Formats: sequence, structure tokens, C-alpha cells
Amino acid sequence: MTNDCGWSLVEERFELDRCKSYEGLFAQGSGYYHVRGALEEPLPDAPQNLRYWRMPTNVTSERFRESLSKWGTYIPGVFGEHPLLGRELVNLPCFLGLAPIVGGTPLDVVSGNVSGHQRTLDLRTGVLTRSLRWRVQGVDLELTYERFASAAHPHIFFQRLTLTPSADVTLELAATIDGDVTTNGYDHFASLEFHMPERDMLECLLETDVGDGVGIRSRVTCTSEASWRFAAEDRRARLIASISVTAGATVTLEKRTSLATSRDPEQRSADEWLADVSDQSWDEALAANTQTWEQRWSACDVIVDGEPRDQRALRTALYHLQRAHVPADTRVAIDAKGYAGEAYWGRFFWDTEMYLLPVYLYTDPDRARTLVSFRVQSLPGAQQNAARYGYPGAKYAWESDDRGNECCPNWQYADHELHVTADVVYGLAHYAAATNETDWLASTAASVVGETARYWAARVDQRVGDDHPSLLGVMGPDEFVPLAGNNAYTNRLVRFAVQQAVTLGLATSDEERARFTRIANDLPILERSDGLVLQCEEFERLAEPDFERTWLDRTRTYAAQVSQERLYRTKALKQADVLMLMWLFPQEFSDAQVRQAWDYYLPYTTHDSSLSASVHAMVALRLGLQDEAQRCWSRAAYLDLDGGAAEGIHIANAAATWMMAIFGFAGMRTALQADVLTLEPRLPAQWSRLAFPVVWKRQHAFVEIDSRQVSVQNRSGAELPVSVFGRRDTVPARGVQTWEQPS
Amino acid sequence: MTNDCGWSLVEERFELDRCKSYEGLFAQGSGYYHVRGALEEPLPDAPQNLRYWRMPTNVTSERFRESLSKWGTYIPGVFGEHPLLGRELVNLPCFLGLAPIVGGTPLDVVSGNVSGHQRTLDLRTGVLTRSLRWRVQGVDLELTYERFASAAHPHIFFQRLTLTPSADVTLELAATIDGDVTTNGYDHFASLEFHMPERDMLECLLETDVGDGVGIRSRVTCTSEASWRFAAEDRRARLIASISVTAGATVTLEKRTSLATSRDPEQRSADEWLADVSDQSWDEALAANTQTWEQRWSACDVIVDGEPRDQRALRTALYHLQRAHVPADTRVAIDAKGYAGEAYWGRFFWDTEMYLLPVYLYTDPDRARTLVSFRVQSLPGAQQNAARYGYPGAKYAWESDDRGNECCPNWQYADHELHVTADVVYGLAHYAAATNETDWLASTAASVVGETARYWAARVDQRVGDDHPSLLGVMGPDEFVPLAGNNAYTNRLVRFAVQQAVTLGLATSDEERARFTRIANDLPILERSDGLVLQCEEFERLAEPDFERTWLDRTRTYAAQVSQERLYRTKALKQADVLMLMWLFPQEFSDAQVRQAWDYYLPYTTHDSSLSASVHAMVALRLGLQDEAQRCWSRAAYLDLDGGAAEGIHIANAAATWMMAIFGFAGMRTALQADVLTLEPRLPAQWSRLAFPVVWKRQHAFVEIDSRQVSVQNRSGAELPVSVFGRRDTVPARGVQTWEQPS
Repeated sequence: MTNDCGWSLVEERFELDRCKSYEGLFAQGSGYYHVRGALEEPLPDAPQNLRYWRMPTNVTSERFRESLSKWGTYIPGVFGEHPLLGRELVNLPCFLGLAPIVGGTPLDVVSGNVSGHQRTLDLRTGVLTRSLRWRVQGVDLELTYERFASAAHPHIFFQRLTLTPSADVTLELAATIDGDVTTNGYDHFASLEFHMPERDMLECLLETDVGDGVGIRSRVTCTSEASWRFAAEDRRARLIASISVTAGATVTLEKRTSLATSRDPEQRSADEWLADVSDQSWDEALAANTQTWEQRWSACDVIVDGEPRDQRALRTALYHLQRAHVPADTRVAIDAKGYAGEAYWGRFFWDTEMYLLPVYLYTDPDRARTLVSFRVQSLPGAQQNAARYGYPGAKYAWESDDRGNECCPNWQYADHELHVTADVVYGLAHYAAATNETDWLASTAASVVGETARYWAARVDQRVGDDHPSLLGVMGPDEFVPLAGNNAYTNRLVRFAVQQAVTLGLATSDEERARFTRIANDLPILERSDGLVLQCEEFERLAEPDFERTWLDRTRTYAAQVSQERLYRTKALKQADVLMLMWLFPQEFSDAQVRQAWDYYLPYTTHDSSLSASVHAMVALRLGLQDEAQRCWSRAAYLDLDGGAAEGIHIANAAATWMMAIFGFAGMRTALQADVLTLEPRLPAQWSRLAFPVVWKRQHAFVEIDSRQVSVQNRSGAELPVSVFGRRDTVPARGVQTWEQPS
Repeated sequence: MTNDCGWSLVEERFELDRCKSYEGLFAQGSGYYHVRGALEEPLPDAPQNLRYWRMPTNVTSERFRESLSKWGTYIPGVFGEHPLLGRELVNLPCFLGLAPIVGGTPLDVVSGNVSGHQRTLDLRTGVLTRSLRWRVQGVDLELTYERFASAAHPHIFFQRLTLTPSADVTLELAATIDGDVTTNGYDHFASLEFHMPERDMLECLLETDVGDGVGIRSRVTCTSEASWRFAAEDRRARLIASISVTAGATVTLEKRTSLATSRDPEQRSADEWLADVSDQSWDEALAANTQTWEQRWSACDVIVDGEPRDQRALRTALYHLQRAHVPADTRVAIDAKGYAGEAYWGRFFWDTEMYLLPVYLYTDPDRARTLVSFRVQSLPGAQQNAARYGYPGAKYAWESDDRGNECCPNWQYADHELHVTADVVYGLAHYAAATNETDWLASTAASVVGETARYWAARVDQRVGDDHPSLLGVMGPDEFVPLAGNNAYTNRLVRFAVQQAVTLGLATSDEERARFTRIANDLPILERSDGLVLQCEEFERLAEPDFERTWLDRTRTYAAQVSQERLYRTKALKQADVLMLMWLFPQEFSDAQVRQAWDYYLPYTTHDSSLSASVHAMVALRLGLQDEAQRCWSRAAYLDLDGGAAEGIHIANAAATWMMAIFGFAGMRTALQADVLTLEPRLPAQWSRLAFPVVWKRQHAFVEIDSRQVSVQNRSGAELPVSVFGRRDTVPARGVQTWEQPS
């Protein structure tokens, strides 16, 4: 790759076996909608309409259906009801279709004579450019595609095709909306119809199986005279025009598509949205988009000097984090695949609070607010979940849809992976601490804190002979121990969450207050006699995993190579569990204890979860294990860049990439871990500089770190108290302060 | 009910809400095929063709689909592939249809003017008789139906309708084969067609989704002149004739149906089977059936004087046990619902060895032989199961189909309820001991013993610091503890099974022999410091179930009233686990230990499983707890009689009813528990006499017990050593010996 300062992602040539991972990596979206980075024309042997039954299973070890290409068009909040898998994000019709046909032969990069095929995603603006030369019927056609999901007009997608033939040619141009698609093999369309409302316009109207209406409308314009005709098949439709182009002349075709649904807060049709931009030229539309992206980047860009690959990884992560966030809509959060694939059914996990929230919290608190507000508005769903299990209060779903309802069809997660309910409260408290919005926690969010505490009070057990309550039958973050007693991570998070209810005075009776207090104080964090923090009561009685004999291919996950039964009876860890706890509550564990846990658990850890390596990187840095930290950084930061994005973006891992840079290498502490902006940098040797903006309790600042010093620019109008290299200090309003690295 | 010596089951009147349970209770079958006891005409509002998705779940707590009636026609071995639930027994077309139509109005017991409706199943012969009076269009029709699945001609079903009008009437008679049926809501028919091969014959030909062909052919004859016409709809067909009957005259209609499949050992068509009986009159056919049933009853009938209800319960159990056994076919066993319903998918469970086997073993060893041979022939499936989990050897399926493949779609049972693999070997050894066929165990069955031992050797773990191997991640008979370490029942059965391999010298190397020996000797049976046998390592750390607050309706199962999550973290027991172990190995536990276990576990036991009460009854009798034993007897013995048969017969519980009488009240020991025929009677006060035939190591005997004495009639030509009331003795060949009850 050229030195683009890590601002572009380039696909140097088209390779069929990398097609799907680029579809994920090149996903574009406005927040309102998202579309995977498919080509503008269908691939042969890559049908998008297959019907099949995807079964409920452990998604981490699931072998996804092999296919060459996977289209994906998603509007957050448009869920359908799958008979086996629960409520899932619906894959909507693909509106990208835009391709030439010469003498009846459509463009086809696989069987056609195509050269110079290259695609580039400009991370700075979200514009995807594609260029290629197609030799067909003796003519060379130079084609350039450009497209972007407008950040300025979130209902509109812009596409442009520029075409130059080497000889006079008559060809057809086709613009398609293709509704012959399924979601995880299932058809969620109760009805699907196509119209040609105007002579240059194509419209798709559908209703999902839960009754949401979706409208998609494309307008095509061409610099050459074109008369569009409408060609509809059963589940797709096209506008086709025949044009003649002289040798060396250039024809430009534009397609603008708008999307709208019946569940939009603004009741406007796709037609009305499209009309908003009818007077805008391509350049004007592009400029508006670029301006919005510039604002976004100024708030969050992390600059790394020294290693272009690391810079690109960070910017790729931040590109998707900005794209995937649904602006100003508290009815949805960010799905686990970053709306770039349907593998995780478009649902919301604990990642929302524990991985995704921080990046927004410290770069754009308004976005963080919509994310935590999602949990407040979906409280009724969480209350229904608790009631279904026979408990009072609120139980947040392991896999939540927009209404907060549990959608996970696998009982071991839905029934036992309870920590998400405490993680949600941790997230609310984190938001309140990082933004100084303690009033919000005590008012708007208090119902969540109180209702989840009520759930915990009913869910804990008091065993005969114990002097403490216990949380039994629990799956911790490590999903390879399905049913544990007193999981340390879960218990600590529950203590934290219930303590919030105590602090906010949310108990409705003395008896309830006593119960809350007892949980907050006495739910145990178990230690072995030598001080080792135990993942759970049973951990030491599990069998040795015997990786030597059972984990033969270390390039693939462990879970894909052994039966679940073996995972469930051995000490094999899917991901950080005790270490995750120690990363969240660093002040509660001595370095020696963290080191002891590292030494004990790491040999058992498979990192089968994409959430694991990043936490290990941060813990390694605390322990001064730079090499280990580097290895974990690389494993996490390059996951999707190195082909991992086929089923979508690992969006929590993208956020963790930011976390590794900021909380790890810059050594910043969160607002729940420190009361002032704290920096303990430990840059990797190959990074000469790390610089980033940060918002700390409503004060904006800019941090620059190199191997010799740290400087903090206070962009606010008030003094900024800081702690750098362990020293307390104050940066004056609008001033800059620099500290030398202690020798 | 009249005093019929417990030989008949009477439905005094038709009640819609009991319809399904009588369909189960009145199931008829020849062994080759089975049919639920539906009426001869469809019920209104009881469609049999509904398509729906039954989900993988815990069948014990599953709420079955509500329906007024459930037809069921099953041929053991005819399995189909369900996309979610695995391979399941196919519900075949219903061939029972036989009904009059008067002036266009078909017989309908719900909306028609029907009186005197009564059905009686004669347990002695398996003949089901139905009588009713139907007033229609001013005429009273007296109808009598009789039907039986011929025990003498196992491919044929005989039906007869006798009809007498009160006035001259012209009416239609219709004989139907109805293929518009589903299996658990799913259609397994790849093709289905109907023909009228002869003027009085109806034929249904179908192919299942796994390629088995099934033919069903009905011939109708009528004492009145009748011209049959063929009327076919999409998935059903009828033969209809119009006849005129004068007042007071009687018309008799006969329908004989034959069934055949492409997988039958004898390659004969339904037509050929039907031809076999074409010369037989009804009376001749009935006599042949009766004769076969008489032979059966002479081998197994248990006579109880003093309590007609108990007598009826025993005979009902034995009726279904004789019906459900598939004679001379080692390719299938007896499904968990006794081929009287599809709720358990027609699959084979551990019940086969631990519940069903004994009754055949001690009454008809040839039948026992086909049952154990099923496990020998399905060894390849068990080997495939083991391989799927990455183990050598053989792992018998928790839910086995005809090929031995695991079909259970719920991982907690399929992956972890391992004891079935040891139970199978226990069954083989039990067969060998009870029949003296030790050669068979050492030859034909040795591969099962060796291969399962190899599986265990790979499946056990050696924990660091332990001086014994462990079996971890196991579900015992008590399915409410899903993942346990060193479950006592499982460990003891595994020790037993692996000891067989050691004894038979099946290890192929010194190293393997050492591994086998170590498992057989050292797999622990854990005891608490006070001697309490522990169900598993974790048991005492589970939470208290708090039945007072959570089990509000004691007439329904506990599992139906709380979430599975609660079951899995508390001490609630589904069924006998430690007590099951103590019942199987009585000599290994002192009375005090059994009493201690009884006192500890019983308060936690829900008896949610139908396999629980019977074992408790037998253990209670050992402990002299007659009242408890009585309660458990009643709970188990009347389960299906009291409305429990809606989804089929609890066939293992039927076998356990025999076990309670013979092993419980008569105090007989099994051939694995004693070397001679042993009797320690403890009759309930209300039973004045208990008498039964028994086969002990190939010697036939007849036992009679009353409150004063025991007599054993030795029907063999050799001396029969016995132990009665703890005293060793010998009954001379063909002699009778009597012992007085010690005072």
C-alpha cells in the first residue's frame, strides 16, 4: 500500500476468496442504514436468495455457511421474527445494482475480461472508489465507480459510474433493486413490490413479517440521453436504458437511493428524502458528506507515527465505529457485527457497555448518551425478561433486540450469562462519571439501577452454612464454563451495580435496603489460599484441557476443533474473565495478584473470543509485559483487516483497538478508575508518537505522547486537573502543559 | 367398572377432554405396527394436518400442543429426518376410517345425537369394542365396532362394524385411509398416492423423506350388497358404498388392512400379506389372535387378589409391554412412548436396559434377546457418536434411532447424560446372567463391552492432585443437575461396565488393561464425612430449591412451574439418582446408608420423571416403609390409567409397574443381585395374594405369595435352588415347595 497516512483501505485486485471479507471491511453506512461492500453487479455462483435453516448455536465456534458473496442492507431497528433464532435484523433488498451490459453481456468480473480492478475506501470520507477496465466485444471500457452513504443526508446513498469506451459503442445501463434476498436463509418479507413512479425512478415497497413498512427509491440520471424502461422480475426490478457512446467520450451515470420506514421518528417517505437532495450536484453532496466526516474525525482521530499498519488499523476501527453508531436514535444500539453482517442477528450484547461505550464517552459524549439511553428505554423488555424467569425487577437480555427482549435461542447464555445486567448499570455509572451527569443517573436512569438491583436480590441464594450470599448457576465472560458458582467477575459487577442502588437510595423498604447492602458488601470474590483470585468456585476442580493433544491447528479457534462437551468440563478459557475483572477494577488488585492471575489463567486461555486479546494487551501493559502486549495488540487490531470481516465487523474489537491505544499504550484511566484525567504512557518501541483528542468530564483536551514526553492541550475554558506519570498537576484553561518521561 | 378381574379397560362415555388419553390407553399393535386408539371417524375441530415447529426442549416439562385428538400410526423402524429435532418415528396415514353417512350427514359423536357410547379394550385379547346409538333423520342406528391388531398375523388389522337401524334406511358406508397427517407438525412424506387396485380395495403408497416405501391396503366387505366407488382428495382417499337396510336387520361391514414397507426383512407387499388371510373368517382370525395372546399371558400374567384397580394396572402395563415389543426384529427396540405417541420421537433411551429389559428377561427371554441384540447391531452408530465427539470406542446415544445414532437435539443430554453407555453394558450383562448365556456376552456382545470401555478410558480425566480418575461434566439420572463431577450412579455403572471388559479380557494391550482396571477400581463413589453417598461432587454446594415458595401446584410437575435455570442451580431432583444406584446394587450399601440417602434426597425429589416413583417404591420396601411404598406404587401404577397416556404410554413406567410387583412386593432379586431365585415378600395389606410366572436362568417357575406363605412351583425338569425369607432351599424338579412367613 502507498503511504496514505493510514487513511485508505485498498483492495489491490479482485480475489474471489477474499470477496466476503472485503464486503465487511468496505461496509458503508449513515447510521440510519448500512450496506455491505458488495460489487455493483451480481457475482456468478453467488445466489443471495438461498433458503436454509441456520440453527441456534454458539456463534463463536459456528462454521458459517460458505458463500462467495453476502449482500447486506440493514436499517437498525427493522427486525423480523425468525421461527428458530428469535428476532433478528432483517436483510433488506440490495439497492447497489448499477452496471453496463454490452451486446447482451453484463459486466462480470469473474468470467469477463476485466483488468486493473481496484477498490479503495477513503476512511476520511467514507467514499468507496472502484476502477476497472473491461474488454468486451472488441471494446475497452474504462469504468470508475464512486459511492458513499451520506453522513450529511443519512437517508441517501449516492453512486456514480463514469464510463469511457475505446471505440464507439452502444450499450445498456441497468440500475437494480434486488429483493431476492434472505436473512440467515429466512425470508422476512410479508410483501414485496416494485414500481416505476417516474420515468427515471425505481421504487421498492415491502412489509416485514412483523409489519414494518420499508420504502427504497432510486433515481438515475445520465449525462448521455437515456430513456429508461422498467423491467421487473418476481423479487427484483431494474431500470434499463440503451445509450451510444463515441470512442474516448465519457458518460456519467448517477444513482441516488433513499430509504425510509414506517418506524422512523420522522414520518417522511423515501420520495420526500430524495427530494431534499434533488437540487444538489454530486460535488455538493460529496462536500456536505466530507464536512460531516471532518467533524467526526476531529473529535476522535488517533494519530500514530511510526507504524502505518497500526495507524490504518486504528482509523479503520474508528471509521466503522462512527459509521455504525445510530445518531440520535435511542431505540437501538450498535449491533455486534457493526451492521456489516447478520451473523449475530443484529442484536446488542454486553459489548455495548464494556467495549463500545468508552470510545464514544471520551470522544463524543452525545453519542455515548444515545447508547446508554437505549438501555433506559428498553427497561420494559428487561422487566419482561425477569418476569419470564419468575423474578421481580429487570434482567437485561444476553442478546437484546430493540425492545430489550431476550432473543438468544441458546439457554446456556440466555439463562445463565447474567453479568450483562450488571454491566448495563456499570455502563450507566460510567456515563455519569465521565460526563459528570450524576443527576441523570439519579433520575432518568435510576429505574434501571433499582429494577436490576431488585432482580439480583431475588436471584442470589443463601446457602446453609455460608456467611455470605452466593450467585450460583452463572456463566461469566468466559463462556467455556457454562454453570459456575460465584464467578468473580460477575459477583464484582453485581456488587458494583447493587451498590449504585444503595448509594442512590433506591430501596423501597428497610428490608430491601438490607438485602441490597448485603449483596453489595458480601457477594464473595473467592481467593485460593495463596491469594489467587478464583474465576469461580469450581474452577480448580475442572479437568486440564490438554491443548497439546486436542488443539492441533492453532490458526483456528479451539472450539472449532473439539466438542463443546470438552470445553465445558475443562479449564480451557474462551476469554479474559478474572483478568477482565482486574482490568476494570485495577485499584482493587495488587500487581502481584494480577501477575499471579496472568500466570495461572493465560496458559488456559484460547482467545477464541475476539474480546479477549485486547483486554490481555491492557493487562500486559500494567505488568510491563511489552512483548505480550504487542502480540495481543496485533491479534486484536488486525483481526478484520486480515480477513476477519467476512461476516461483518467485530465492532467491539474495533472499540477495543481504540481502548488498547488510549487505555493501554497511553495509560489513560477511565472516569470510574480515576477522578482526574490520568496518563501513564508505555508506548511500543516502534511508535514515535501517539496523539488523540479526549473529552474528560465535559472538558476537551488533546494529548500528545512521544518517547520523551507527554503534553496535554486543555481546549476548555477551565483548569484541567490531571495526573501524568503518577504526578498530580493542573493544565490551565486553553493552555498546554508538558511532562518529561521519568527516567 | 364391573368386576372383570382387571381384564378390561372401559371408557364409560365419550368425553372430549379425555379423548387423547384414551387414544393412548387404547393403542393397539402387533409389534410390527401400532395404532393409537382414535375413533373410526374424524372429530370436528381436531385437524390432524397442522404444520408447526415443535422445538428442541426438555420433553418432561414440555407443554405439548393442545389438540382434541391425535392420530398415530407407527411402524417401528420407519424414521424420517426432521430438520430441527433429528430423526423421528414417522406418523403414517391413519387407516382406521370406517363410518356411516346418512343423508349426507356423517357420524359425529360431538354434534350428532349419539347415546350409549362406550368403548372396552379387552386386555386379554387386545380387541377394542365400541358401541353406540346414533339417532339421525328419524332413525336409530345401533352401531358396534370391533377391531384388533392381529397378534397371529402381525401385518394385518381387522375391523368390523355391525349396524342395525330402527327403520328402513338408505345410507352410505365409507372406509378411509387418511394421509393428511403430520409428525410433530412436520410432513415426512416425499410422495403419497392412493389407488383402487380392486373394486373393494383401497391402497395408499408413500415414500418417506429418507426413502422408505410404505404400502397400506384395505379391503372392505359387506353382508349387504354394496358397490364401492373410489373418492380421492389430495392426501386421503375413501371407498364409499350406498346400501339399504330394513328396520331391525343387521348389516356387517368388515375392513382388513395390511401394512408393509421396503425395509421389511421379508420382501412382501401389503397385497401379499392381505392375501394370507383372505380365506379366514372374522371368527377364525379372532381365534388365531386370541390364541397368541393366551400364550403371551400365560408367560407373564401377574395375579393380584384383593384390589381390582391394582390388578387392572398390572394387566394394562403388561398388555402394552407385549404389544409394544417388536418380535424377532433386532433392528429396533421399544420406544419411550410404547409406540402409542410421537412425543419422544420414537427413540430409544436408557429405559430400554434399566426398566424394560427385566420384565422380558424374567418372563420371555427370547424377547429380551431381541432387545439386547438391538444394542449389538447398532454398535456402528455408537462408534460414530464417539467419533463425532473425538473419542475412540462407542458412545451410545441418549436418544437413539434404529441405527444407534444420537438424535437428541438438546446438547445437555446428548453431550453429558453419558450413563446410558454404561447402562447398555449393564443390560447385556443382566441378560447373560439371567439366561446363563455368558458365552453370548463373551462373543456376540463383546464388541459392545470392549468398545464402550475404550470410550470410557478416553473420557475420564485425571486431575492433578487426585489419586483417582474422575468422570466430569456428567448428567446423572437426575436431569436437574446438568453438569456434575463424579456422579455416583454414573461412576458405579461405568465401573461395572469396564469391569466386564476386564473380566472378559477385552483390553488389547497391557496399557489398556491397566487403564480399564484403574477405572473399574478407582472411579470414586463419593461419601460425605458422615457416610452420606453424594450424588456428585457439587451437590451440597447447590442452592436449596425453596419448594414452599416456588412449587405452588403440586398436581403439576415442578419443571413446568419454574425456569430451567432454577432447576439447574438448586438441589431439586427430577428423579431417583443415588437411590437408583442403591436399588441396583443393594448389597453394596447398608440399610443405614440407604435410609440416610432416603432421608436426605427425598425432600428434594420432585418425581417429575415417570421413572422416579417406582424406584422409590422398591427402596421404600427395603426400608420397611410400607406407606411410602404404597404411595409410590399408586403414583406410578395408575399414571396412564388416570389420564397420563394422552401423548402415549409411559412404557418404562409400565415395566416398572411389573418391577414394583415382582422386585418390590414379592421381593425378588435380579440375576445380577443374587445367584438363585430369591424372594423376600412384603405384600401390601390389601393384597391377599400375588402370583406370577418367572423364568430364572432358563428354569420356569410359578410363584404364589399370600400373607402367610410363599410357594414356588418348579416347572422345569431340574432342581431349582431358591432363597425365600432369607433361607436357602431347593425346589425339586416339577415340584412345589411352600415356606411359611416368619413371624
